Amino acid sequence: MYSEDTICAISSPAGTGAIALIRISGSKAIAVCNEAVSFHEKQLADISSNTVHLGRFIINNEPVDEVMISVFRSPHTYTGEDLVEISCHGSKYIQQKILETIIEKGARLAKPGEFTQRAFLNGKMDLSQAEAVADLIASQSAGAHRLAINQMRGGFSDEIRSLRDKLLHFVSLMELELDFSEEDVEFANRKELEILISSIRALVERLISSFDYGNAMKHGIPVAIAGQTNSGKSTLLNLLLHEEKAIVSEIAGTTRDYIEDVIILKGIQFRFIDTAGLRHTTDNIESEGIRRTLKKIEQARMVLVVIDLNENPEEVEKGLSFIFDEKDKQKEFIIVLNKKDIIAEDILKNRLKTYKNLWGKKAILQPISAKTGEGIDKLEDLLVSGLGNNPSGDLVVTNVRHLEALNHSSAALERAQNGLKNGIPGDLISQDIREVLHYLGEITGEITNDEILGNIFKNFCIGK
Amino acid sequence: MYSEDTICAISSPAGTGAIALIRISGSKAIAVCNEAVSFHEKQLADISSNTVHLGRFIINNEPVDEVMISVFRSPHTYTGEDLVEISCHGSKYIQQKILETIIEKGARLAKPGEFTQRAFLNGKMDLSQAEAVADLIASQSAGAHRLAINQMRGGFSDEIRSLRDKLLHFVSLMELELDFSEEDVEFANRKELEILISSIRALVERLISSFDYGNAMKHGIPVAIAGQTNSGKSTLLNLLLHEEKAIVSEIAGTTRDYIEDVIILKGIQFRFIDTAGLRHTTDNIESEGIRRTLKKIEQARMVLVVIDLNENPEEVEKGLSFIFDEKDKQKEFIIVLNKKDIIAEDILKNRLKTYKNLWGKKAILQPISAKTGEGIDKLEDLLVSGLGNNPSGDLVVTNVRHLEALNHSSAALERAQNGLKNGIPGDLISQDIREVLHYLGEITGEITNDEILGNIFKNFCIGK
Repeated sequence: MYSEDTICAISSPAGTGAIALIRISGSKAIAVCNEAVSFHEKQLADISSNTVHLGRFIINNEPVDEVMISVFRSPHTYTGEDLVEISCHGSKYIQQKILETIIEKGARLAKPGEFTQRAFLNGKMDLSQAEAVADLIASQSAGAHRLAINQMRGGFSDEIRSLRDKLLHFVSLMELELDFSEEDVEFANRKELEILISSIRALVERLISSFDYGNAMKHGIPVAIAGQTNSGKSTLLNLLLHEEKAIVSEIAGTTRDYIEDVIILKGIQFRFIDTAGLRHTTDNIESEGIRRTLKKIEQARMVLVVIDLNENPEEVEKGLSFIFDEKDKQKEFIIVLNKKDIIAEDILKNRLKTYKNLWGKKAILQPISAKTGEGIDKLEDLLVSGLGNNPSGDLVVTNVRHLEALNHSSAALERAQNGLKNGIPGDLISQDIREVLHYLGEITGEITNDEILGNIFKNFCIGK
Repeated sequence: MYSEDTICAISSPAGTGAIALIRISGSKAIAVCNEAVSFHEKQLADISSNTVHLGRFIINNEPVDEVMISVFRSPHTYTGEDLVEISCHGSKYIQQKILETIIEKGARLAKPGEFTQRAFLNGKMDLSQAEAVADLIASQSAGAHRLAINQMRGGFSDEIRSLRDKLLHFVSLMELELDFSEEDVEFANRKELEILISSIRALVERLISSFDYGNAMKHGIPVAIAGQTNSGKSTLLNLLLHEEKAIVSEIAGTTRDYIEDVIILKGIQFRFIDTAGLRHTTDNIESEGIRRTLKKIEQARMVLVVIDLNENPEEVEKGLSFIFDEKDKQKEFIIVLNKKDIIAEDILKNRLKTYKNLWGKKAILQPISAKTGEGIDKLEDLLVSGLGNNPSGDLVVTNVRHLEALNHSSAALERAQNGLKNGIPGDLISQDIREVLHYLGEITGEITNDEILGNIFKNFCIGK
């Protein structure tokens, strides 16, 4: 089915550059390129697998570019199919002409992720590994990257697959019992099955509990910054952003668009949600300002409350205490006591004590000077440690689709456990186990359908 | 000198994509990668030239990516040096980490065009070929692309080099005569020298005459569109742009930024310069509007004057005749008689006659309907044929640096010709010939210096 058509795409990032890469995969990959490519002394079809050659790409008897061409022969390729890679000069005109010509010769433009989809369909990787390829390309921090590459290299799917295989063995035995229902035999040892199910459930629960961590690591930790105007919020944000810029500015073409409010500290990405400064009218804080601030805080996992140490704590309390009424126990509050550089030592001590008494139970206090940078490294440490550790050790779920399948599995596992405990007939238990098999199989792709595949690969870039 | 340091760069277009390409060139290219790359069963150093291998890129004992690595061994490489190419997943994070690691291991970030500069310095191409590499990457139309690839593949530099070599032979003989000056000998046959010089001068003049064509082909032909408001200027521009969009929209990521007013017709690029619509107050055209329109027309090579056929020709004449006072004989004027769809046949005939009498000697007339598209293909033909043919046949100069060197050569050649005619002493003539040798050598790079190289390569992209 798949091997019938040959796909092609520009796999390098869109735009003009020194070199662009065009990939062609499918049974006719070599044939569609063969005509268009001219070599010094050979034909494309004669080239050995995994070798690179200088050639000319010819269109209407005119060389359109001097290119480097590699041939990778099925089955030891990324897609499992014959694969040709053409490195051309990175002008958009040349990229387009070469692509057009290859399409003219019989290939078609690949859909997003179609190379990887073929790799999955040809057994080169399981579905969660395929998903990790897209995560890997999208990852912007060391943390997100590490999760993606672990998942790409197998992650938890080996473990799931092996437990699933054992479960499959049991359910087959149980279903065999049905054929002998009048004889009341038990091919499947119920004790062993209980042990297996509870060990699978333990794994599933561990994986579910890791999602909160994994999701934050993958998409960045949302941090709200609140505070009164002139408390130094934006100076602080700039200071934090500065660290990041030094890292990313080394690569040409890095746009600042998406890093405007994204900071990577020790490999973890933080997404800063700035709240409008609360106006400094202590008697009369507008309810609209409060509502908006609380709404932003709601989206956050951590909250920085920036306070000017020079302000009168009583007035600050009046202005900001609504923030600490927040019910969410999961949320971490850090009170950033700013402008410590322009306050006398004894007043500083006093203020620290005051704020500790006031909000010390609900928040961590950190005196800093956004102007001189003093205390900023400690604040960064607080941010980093605020994520906590992965409750699940090495295993991390980052994917909502996996989480859903795990939740369904967990529910079915619980039903099966209860059924076994209560001596419910084997055919009912085997139904629950079949459901577990289904959902675990969805994660690794042993169970799949066009809709699942469509949803996964539509988010890939073209060319991967 | 060059082989001492090893350079590296991201050679694929900037940004995120399926696959990115990192290149490393220099004597330590293999050594700096060797440590960081792990293969299934081999070392990078053991890999044969021109082969591709799947490996892992390792940083601090952690795999940062699964990559494809090619090794190209000196001297049969692009730069002439050892060259390693790493294809990694196209996340910015991965690109950056791999680049950082390679730099840590002893390579340095390449300067713009430094790979190509090394190719030139190592004799892989001459200077005009190196310049063509940048032109090739920048080319956006079939015309500009064809000129660049011809130049990259040798262009006129072979011919220049061979004539220069002959000239060098003559001047050496002439300079030998100086050692025997008292004996009044002539080693260099003056007749043959005169023939050689005049054939070189003919070539140089042909090349100079091609620049106007080559420059327009390379940078696009500036076309001003003038006309009164409501004559349909913008409908016409949109119609022309529409053709273009259909071509470029097929490549993902193509931004419309630069094609806003750029159209490619039959492989030739046109850059449209829109003039502000002249207000329809015939008695009283503001001198400011006239001044601005003339200024834009000044920058153009062709001018489209858009006229609404329904308007009274007398009033149109009053409003637009200033345009046809333009002195520049080189400039081509096309009067676009628009809205022919809403005018009766007999009036149309009348108007055509009127405008022909009025401006027919200064301009070409083309009736169209920008609304229905009628006549637009003929207008496009007029635009394309407006460029004319290259007066110099196959040889085209597109580069201002080359033009300057050719102009200097031409002047020196003329002096040498006159000198020979007037029997001027050999040492004076040989001075002129030395100058010719110098300027012709600058084109191909036989004569060069850091400043010339710096100016050329600073405009390259990094990674090429």
